[in-house]
Amino acid sequence: MSDVNRQILLAELPQGHLSPDHFRLTEGARPTPGPGEALLRTRYISLDAANRAWMQGATYRSALKAGDVMAGGALAEVVEADGGGLEPGDLVSADTGWQDYAVLPTKRLAKLPKLEPMTHLLSVYGVAGLTAYFGLLECGKPKAGETVVVSAAAGSVGSIVGQIAKIQGCRVVGIAGGEAKGRWLIDELGFDAVADYKAGNLRAQLKEHAPGGIDVYFDNVGGDIFETCLFSMNNFGRIACCGALSSYDGAPPAHGPRGVPGLIVTRRLTLRGFVVMDFDDQREKALADLQRWVAEGKLKVQEDVIDGLENLPAALVGLLAGENRGKRMVKVR
Amino acid sequence: MSDVNRQILLAELPQGHLSPDHFRLTEGARPTPGPGEALLRTRYISLDAANRAWMQGATYRSALKAGDVMAGGALAEVVEADGGGLEPGDLVSADTGWQDYAVLPTKRLAKLPKLEPMTHLLSVYGVAGLTAYFGLLECGKPKAGETVVVSAAAGSVGSIVGQIAKIQGCRVVGIAGGEAKGRWLIDELGFDAVADYKAGNLRAQLKEHAPGGIDVYFDNVGGDIFETCLFSMNNFGRIACCGALSSYDGAPPAHGPRGVPGLIVTRRLTLRGFVVMDFDDQREKALADLQRWVAEGKLKVQEDVIDGLENLPAALVGLLAGENRGKRMVKVR
Repeated sequence: MSDVNRQILLAELPQGHLSPDHFRLTEGARPTPGPGEALLRTRYISLDAANRAWMQGATYRSALKAGDVMAGGALAEVVEADGGGLEPGDLVSADTGWQDYAVLPTKRLAKLPKLEPMTHLLSVYGVAGLTAYFGLLECGKPKAGETVVVSAAAGSVGSIVGQIAKIQGCRVVGIAGGEAKGRWLIDELGFDAVADYKAGNLRAQLKEHAPGGIDVYFDNVGGDIFETCLFSMNNFGRIACCGALSSYDGAPPAHGPRGVPGLIVTRRLTLRGFVVMDFDDQREKALADLQRWVAEGKLKVQEDVIDGLENLPAALVGLLAGENRGKRMVKVR
Repeated sequence: MSDVNRQILLAELPQGHLSPDHFRLTEGARPTPGPGEALLRTRYISLDAANRAWMQGATYRSALKAGDVMAGGALAEVVEADGGGLEPGDLVSADTGWQDYAVLPTKRLAKLPKLEPMTHLLSVYGVAGLTAYFGLLECGKPKAGETVVVSAAAGSVGSIVGQIAKIQGCRVVGIAGGEAKGRWLIDELGFDAVADYKAGNLRAQLKEHAPGGIDVYFDNVGGDIFETCLFSMNNFGRIACCGALSSYDGAPPAHGPRGVPGLIVTRRLTLRGFVVMDFDDQREKALADLQRWVAEGKLKVQEDVIDGLENLPAALVGLLAGENRGKRMVKVR
C-alpha cells in the first residue's frame, strides 16, 4: 500500500466542451480513517455521462466546484474499516471520487458479492444495469409486441435496455452514431434495427425501422433526438427520461424540444424521470433477474476498460464524444 | 320547429390569430335522419380552447378543413330518433357542430339526465368538470398538504381543478391574467393564492405563493408558463398535461420549454397527457363525486352563457383571449 494518494482535481469548471485541461493530477498523503469510517482503495472508477452534468449545477447531488476532487463512483476494496460489518479485502460500491484512496463513513458503503469478473459489479450489476432495468421496466412498462426505441444505444445503459426489451418480447430499435455501432448492436446484441443519427434524417429512419410508431422511448440524450422520437410516439406511449447527454457538455440549451406539451396531451403520453436510487427497495429482484439473464446468455455484457488513473480525464471526454461501447471504466492500478 | 338550419362554417383556416372573419353564417335545409340516426336540435353549444387546436391539425380527432361546419360539442334535444332508446325531448351530449340541427347515429349519442339548470350538463357535469376531475386526480394524484398549481385557473377546467384540489386538502395556487380574476378565485372559489401572469415575473410570484415548491402542476397552457412551473417543481412532482392554450391561436411554437427533459430526470417528475374520453369507464363515480360536492356547496359552478348562435365566432375568439370566467357556452335559441 502506497503512502501517496494520487487525486484528479476538477481544476476549472468547463464553460463549453470539457477537455482534459480542465483537470489536474495532484498527489497528497493517504488519508486516515476515524471512528465509523473506512479507508478504501479504488480498483475501478466508473465513467458516466452524469459526471459532466454534475459540473453544470445541482442535480440529485450538489454541483461540483473548481478545485474539488472529481466526483465519481467506484468499485473499491476495503483497506481498513471501523464497523459496518466490513473486513479488509471486502469489495464495496462507493462514491470515492477520482483518487487512489478515499475515507468514507461505513454507513454509506454497500458491501458487494465476490464474483468474476469483478468489473460486472460496475456494469451490468451496477448503476448501468440497474438503471436500464428500472428505467425500462418501471418507467417504460413495455409489453410484448411493442416497439421500444433507445438512444445512446451503444452506451452502458442503452446496450442493456435494448437487450432487456428483447427479453420482454419487444421490437427494439437503437439510435447510435455510425455504422459500426449499428452493426454491433444488431449482430452481437440482437437489436432489430439501428438508426444512425449521424447519417441525417432520423425521422425518416425511424419511420422505416419503426413503421408502426414508438410505444416506449428510453431517452438518454434529450435535445433533437428526444424531439424526433416525441413526434414518432404512438398514443398512450411512455418515455423513460434517464438523461440528457446532448445538453451536458456545453452551455444549457436555450430551448427545449418542440411538441412539449402539445403532443404529450394529444397522444396521451406519460413521461417519467428517474434516478436509479429511487428503486433501491427492488434491487434484489433486479439483480436476480440480471444474473439469470446473463447466465442464460440472453444478456451480453460489454465493457470498455481503460488502464490507469491518469487517463480518467481523457476517458470521460471520449465518453461524452460517444467513443465507447458498453460500460466504460478505468482500472486504477 | 324551423325548416331552416343555420350553420356556421369555418370558411377559412386561420394562419395567425383567429378572428370572426374566418367564419361564415349560412342557411340550409333541416336535415332528415335515416335508419339508426337521430335528428337533434342544439340547445347550448360548448366553447373550448380545443376548438382552435382542431384547426391546426389532427389531434384526438381529424383536423378541420376550410368549408366544414365548425366542429363543437353541444347539449342537444332529440327531435326524432330511430332506436338507441331515445325519445323526442331527451337531452343528449353530441358532437353536433355549430348549427341549429344535426343528424347523428344514435350509437354516438349519450342520453343525459334531466337536471336543473341543464347548463350544468355542459359545465361541471360535462367535459370541463370531468376533465378537471380525472386530470387532477388520476394524472396529478394530489395528496393532502401538497401544493397544486393550475394555469388558466379562471377557465372552465381550471376553476374546477382548484376547487377539487382544495377538497383534497391541498394548498392551491392559480395562475390567471389580471387582478379581478385573482380576487374572484380567492374570494369566491377559495383558492389560497393567485399569480397574475400578466403582471410579469411569474417565477418570483410562484416562489412567494408556493414557497415550498410545486407538487402537482395542472397545465392548460404550455409555453412559458409551463416552463416557469417546470423549474418550480419539487422532486417526484406530477404534471397533468391537459392542453396547450398558449400555442393554439397562431403558428405552432418554434421551440418547446427549456428544462425538458433535463429537469424531468433530475427531479424525477412524471408528466402525463390525457383526454377526458380516456376515463369513460370511471365516469359514473366521477359524476357522483361532482354532484355531491356541488350539493354540499364545496364546488361552485361558474358559467358564462352568451345568447345567440350567430355570436359563436366572437365567443370563441374572446375565450382564446381569456375574457371568460368559468364555462363559456352559447344558448342557441
